[in-house]
Amino acid sequence: MKNGIPLKDRERVEVRLAGMGGQGMVLAGQVLARAAAVYDGKNAVQSQSYGAQQRGGPSQSEVVISTGEIDYPRVVSADILVALTQEACDKHFLNLRKGGILIVDSGLVDRVPTSHAYRVPVTELSRKATGRPIAASIVALGLLAELTGVVSEEALRATLAVESPRGALDLNLRALEAGLEEGRRLKGA
Amino acid sequence: MKNGIPLKDRERVEVRLAGMGGQGMVLAGQVLARAAAVYDGKNAVQSQSYGAQQRGGPSQSEVVISTGEIDYPRVVSADILVALTQEACDKHFLNLRKGGILIVDSGLVDRVPTSHAYRVPVTELSRKATGRPIAASIVALGLLAELTGVVSEEALRATLAVESPRGALDLNLRALEAGLEEGRRLKGA
Repeated sequence: MKNGIPLKDRERVEVRLAGMGGQGMVLAGQVLARAAAVYDGKNAVQSQSYGAQQRGGPSQSEVVISTGEIDYPRVVSADILVALTQEACDKHFLNLRKGGILIVDSGLVDRVPTSHAYRVPVTELSRKATGRPIAASIVALGLLAELTGVVSEEALRATLAVESPRGALDLNLRALEAGLEEGRRLKGA
Repeated sequence: MKNGIPLKDRERVEVRLAGMGGQGMVLAGQVLARAAAVYDGKNAVQSQSYGAQQRGGPSQSEVVISTGEIDYPRVVSADILVALTQEACDKHFLNLRKGGILIVDSGLVDRVPTSHAYRVPVTELSRKATGRPIAASIVALGLLAELTGVVSEEALRATLAVESPRGALDLNLRALEAGLEEGRRLKGA
């Protein structure tokens, strides 16, 4: 909003989902990209890079969503950063575009380098909604849909319905709803 | 080999894994990228693009592996193409570098546009080794390791050990071994 054009109306939007191995950031990136493309009718590229240092360490996933062709497929300067750990926030905040949207897990990120951030107990919401912390990245997708509009909630639901492993769909949908609900609450606040 | 420097000794190698949704190409790309980076000590980027037309249709995954920094993360001209369907072969063959390595599923690809290709019954090998066709992309990784050397078999095994969902490790390792064995047979032939 700060840059004039709302994110959902821009041609190209760059999203970075960052956390630790095991938090499902790569999976969430794939769900987001597929939802935006297959169900919202845009183009999307999802990628992640790996280095030798990454054993059990930080994990991040990038999604570029565009209504046009995607020339350069990596995040150059993120419009949206979701950071589920302090390390992820510290590392990627500088790459967040001025006026970009920052969503942090308030239970895991103590030091937030800006006052313009959504502080949401993402992992805690996942635990409450599903009994497990593991769906935190799906909660984050719900937040993203409500707070940024770069993907529709219908597209996320449809993608989860197709892509969830057997037995995980119900859990994933509950996590998504928790994120959507919290997003609506924050928007209304 | 045809270009002078063996693939395993080149700085940058571009791999495309192409097939249909459900054949596990995206997962295989992630395993390959992670194996090359975390266990073989290189850098790797894995990506896939989605468009509105891709519902239940073709699926492809790209991996760039490099001993140096990876400037452009997508496949420009593939050094290696694995094609598990006729459509994937038709679509991506023109983007295979001259002298590049083509591996096709001989059970699913009838028309191969070159005589320089490895024709391997990938899905059939998966079925024989695991009782299921679904591990075809893991069989393909075994072939890739033996026939191209761009990733080590130890790195693939270690990655599968960490990344396989509970209950799937044994199946994945059997699929990998089937691919490695067939690769050795083809090299010796």
